[in-house]
Amino acid sequence: MAERIPKQADDFPSWYQEVVKQAGMAEHGLSKGTMIIKPHGYAVWEHIQRALDDRFKATGHENVYFPLFIPEKLLHKEAEHVEGFSPELAVVTHGGGEELEEPLVVRPTSETIIWHTYANWIQSYRDLPLLYNQWCNVVRWEKRSRLFLRTTEFLWQEGHTAHANAEEALEEVLRMLEVYREVAEDVLAIPVIPGRKSESEKFAGAVTTYTIEGLMRDRKALQCGTSHFLGQNFARAYDVKFLDVDGKEEYAWATSWGFSARMVGGTIMTHGDDSGLRLPPAVAPVQVVIVPIYKTDEEKGVVLAAADKVRAGLAGNSVRVKVDDRDQHRPGFKFSEWELKGVPIRLEVGPRDVEADQMVLVDRVGSGKRSIGSAQAIADMAGELERVQKTLYDQARDFRDENTHEATDYESLAAGLRDAGGFWRGGWCGDVECEDRVARETSATIRFLPIEPEDPHTSCSVCGRAATETATWAKAY
Amino acid sequence: MAERIPKQADDFPSWYQEVVKQAGMAEHGLSKGTMIIKPHGYAVWEHIQRALDDRFKATGHENVYFPLFIPEKLLHKEAEHVEGFSPELAVVTHGGGEELEEPLVVRPTSETIIWHTYANWIQSYRDLPLLYNQWCNVVRWEKRSRLFLRTTEFLWQEGHTAHANAEEALEEVLRMLEVYREVAEDVLAIPVIPGRKSESEKFAGAVTTYTIEGLMRDRKALQCGTSHFLGQNFARAYDVKFLDVDGKEEYAWATSWGFSARMVGGTIMTHGDDSGLRLPPAVAPVQVVIVPIYKTDEEKGVVLAAADKVRAGLAGNSVRVKVDDRDQHRPGFKFSEWELKGVPIRLEVGPRDVEADQMVLVDRVGSGKRSIGSAQAIADMAGELERVQKTLYDQARDFRDENTHEATDYESLAAGLRDAGGFWRGGWCGDVECEDRVARETSATIRFLPIEPEDPHTSCSVCGRAATETATWAKAY
Repeated sequence: MAERIPKQADDFPSWYQEVVKQAGMAEHGLSKGTMIIKPHGYAVWEHIQRALDDRFKATGHENVYFPLFIPEKLLHKEAEHVEGFSPELAVVTHGGGEELEEPLVVRPTSETIIWHTYANWIQSYRDLPLLYNQWCNVVRWEKRSRLFLRTTEFLWQEGHTAHANAEEALEEVLRMLEVYREVAEDVLAIPVIPGRKSESEKFAGAVTTYTIEGLMRDRKALQCGTSHFLGQNFARAYDVKFLDVDGKEEYAWATSWGFSARMVGGTIMTHGDDSGLRLPPAVAPVQVVIVPIYKTDEEKGVVLAAADKVRAGLAGNSVRVKVDDRDQHRPGFKFSEWELKGVPIRLEVGPRDVEADQMVLVDRVGSGKRSIGSAQAIADMAGELERVQKTLYDQARDFRDENTHEATDYESLAAGLRDAGGFWRGGWCGDVECEDRVARETSATIRFLPIEPEDPHTSCSVCGRAATETATWAKAY
Repeated sequence: MAERIPKQADDFPSWYQEVVKQAGMAEHGLSKGTMIIKPHGYAVWEHIQRALDDRFKATGHENVYFPLFIPEKLLHKEAEHVEGFSPELAVVTHGGGEELEEPLVVRPTSETIIWHTYANWIQSYRDLPLLYNQWCNVVRWEKRSRLFLRTTEFLWQEGHTAHANAEEALEEVLRMLEVYREVAEDVLAIPVIPGRKSESEKFAGAVTTYTIEGLMRDRKALQCGTSHFLGQNFARAYDVKFLDVDGKEEYAWATSWGFSARMVGGTIMTHGDDSGLRLPPAVAPVQVVIVPIYKTDEEKGVVLAAADKVRAGLAGNSVRVKVDDRDQHRPGFKFSEWELKGVPIRLEVGPRDVEADQMVLVDRVGSGKRSIGSAQAIADMAGELERVQKTLYDQARDFRDENTHEATDYESLAAGLRDAGGFWRGGWCGDVECEDRVARETSATIRFLPIEPEDPHTSCSVCGRAATETATWAKAY
């Protein structure tokens, strides 16, 4: 099965496409740019959702749901926002067999409809803050699609909060960025760097966009989550005013933040190898697979009984475990298939293992085979899974660090971005012309600046003038 | 606050509308027929989702996600299905600034796109059964909308399974109907009757539709969940064939089943009273509210400390508890507001209660006030909540039973349906003309027939000929 997967080093996009398909994560839908998320992929997304949602609630947020359809004219009230999203809109023109008087836009994001509504919900400082989130699908028209990473319709959460002053809003923006960092690193084992976007790269309508960025196995960056400080832009556009403690009328301050199912793709591209997926235990739909090995029917009975005993013990400890008792496949086929599907730990059990009351433990991070007593396997499994989780993170962090470079001058920067890939860090004068030149000549972009602007005491890697920022460039998804 | 709510007996639709709005459950969206689900309403839906999803997984189902957009021509392959849904479709004609070559329908339900895909997933009996479910939004154009009950876009889950034979598919259909019954009765405390739909009332494309039906406080029925046996209709339409154990080619057998956020509305209409919502503890976002009562600052400190101690104890026992420590409202206002919001149990604590180390417990099902020791309140709360849950169910079942009648002849049936409301049971000859006559003259429909057809040994309540079925009629949502 795994033979037909191209090697990462030979053709990373084909490797990705094939792994996603063959591991049963997702496939393309019938209509252009759409995707079908299959059980193995959707289960990973469910674990991500749970990890995020628990943290949203722990930080005082509640879930809500706003409509999919937005009247077209509503979108036009925030100028930068509509300019950014207009080229990507899907438009409903007919409903119930009739042409609509006003076309409806399928939400590309929900700031407009939400801030239109907040105008009714916010009158006084006592109504603030509003700390709301919604889980939903959004649509942004795409010419070229890539499973999980770029599809016309995608699944995400979008948080939309309103505050009485700029300080609280900024605190919220960074609090949610930290939640994203924690989920990326602790749950998905993806090391990320929190930063701030340049003006060209920020969200349409934001004052400042913050991001967490990871590095994939092909040395391209992936934006893993963004948190926006929207200032009073949307409050002004939708007339959301409140009376503050002193009875003075003020516009509310806004944030929005999003994390999407593209991170299933990010998980695949951070950890996968030439044998397929390597899923972090925290999100693996199956954490442990037990493969029975037998020849005779008698052996089969004995081996399956032993397998089931360990399965029950592991399940009792909340381990997601499965016995692969399919008759039509040989053990070697099953090993490859579960490696392809990225299951963190495999237990093999044959007749001689049963006699010794043991199993053979193999993990997906290359620690080699070893025997382990059956009771021990049950008792130690939580620790083993933690070890795999940590190893995946450490390997990804080492890879990221090995592929992070300092640019000494423009030639090294441009050549490095074009040939070596990875993150390239250097001074930047803040001029959009220098930013554009790099993009034009290397197709790389500034992925992030430091959260807080600080004088880099160096010169611009592009034009040589004094730098005002330290930028980190990379080619990106 | 609650004063402005009309009485149920005077104007049930206005009562419903006002309670939904004032309790912060939902409000109308800007675009026609849409709704905004507010935190208190969405949290109820989240509890329903968890209850269903846990049971889906326990019965072997996995979640998937299929695209929102369906190419229009795909819909046309199953004739009855397209006829049923065509009048309700929303159509996307423009994407990314261009007119689309082929219009895209926004899914009204997903049988078509899913069975088109199953054609690739199903080759052999070894691929069966497929036991998949998805959580999503669907769109069915509505001229008249009603919050939760009838909106252009709504949230639901739709299960879509494929089987090797009719028996297994039918077993699945009834298994999921039983899951729905369990969630309706044990979680939402809504007594329901499982039954089978008449030919006129079945799902477009189904062989047989099964339903669970509840009776609301205005004596109208609500369809609470449906489970469809689709036979081989969709397999034929989308050419889903497999090789069976004997190497013979067969069409796969299909089921689909859905439960939607309209059941938040069903919960409101089953249990609510003239003071507002009465939420079953199993889905109440706040199960216990503690209202502190004090006059001086000194009292405030003492009372809030006592309230917080009990809050912590209850939270430690996984009770969803909140202390209402707002300064700007009096206790009486808070009592009304939490009654309106349907919180099952209120604990009041004033300075004298603190001295006696007790609180005053009031439940939302009218058992009266009583004092309870603080430690006792913590220890007994799970039991108290169970008692409220059971009382709500018992009251609703008694109401349903009191409003279930036997029709002796057509006059009593028609007059009963028109005037008294409730469920009316009687013989039916099976003729659609009799069914139509009742609908025309009373606007009531057959809500259900018995799961298994059985000879009623009686005559048709409409035409007097021999009955072939026992029908239960009611006006319905």
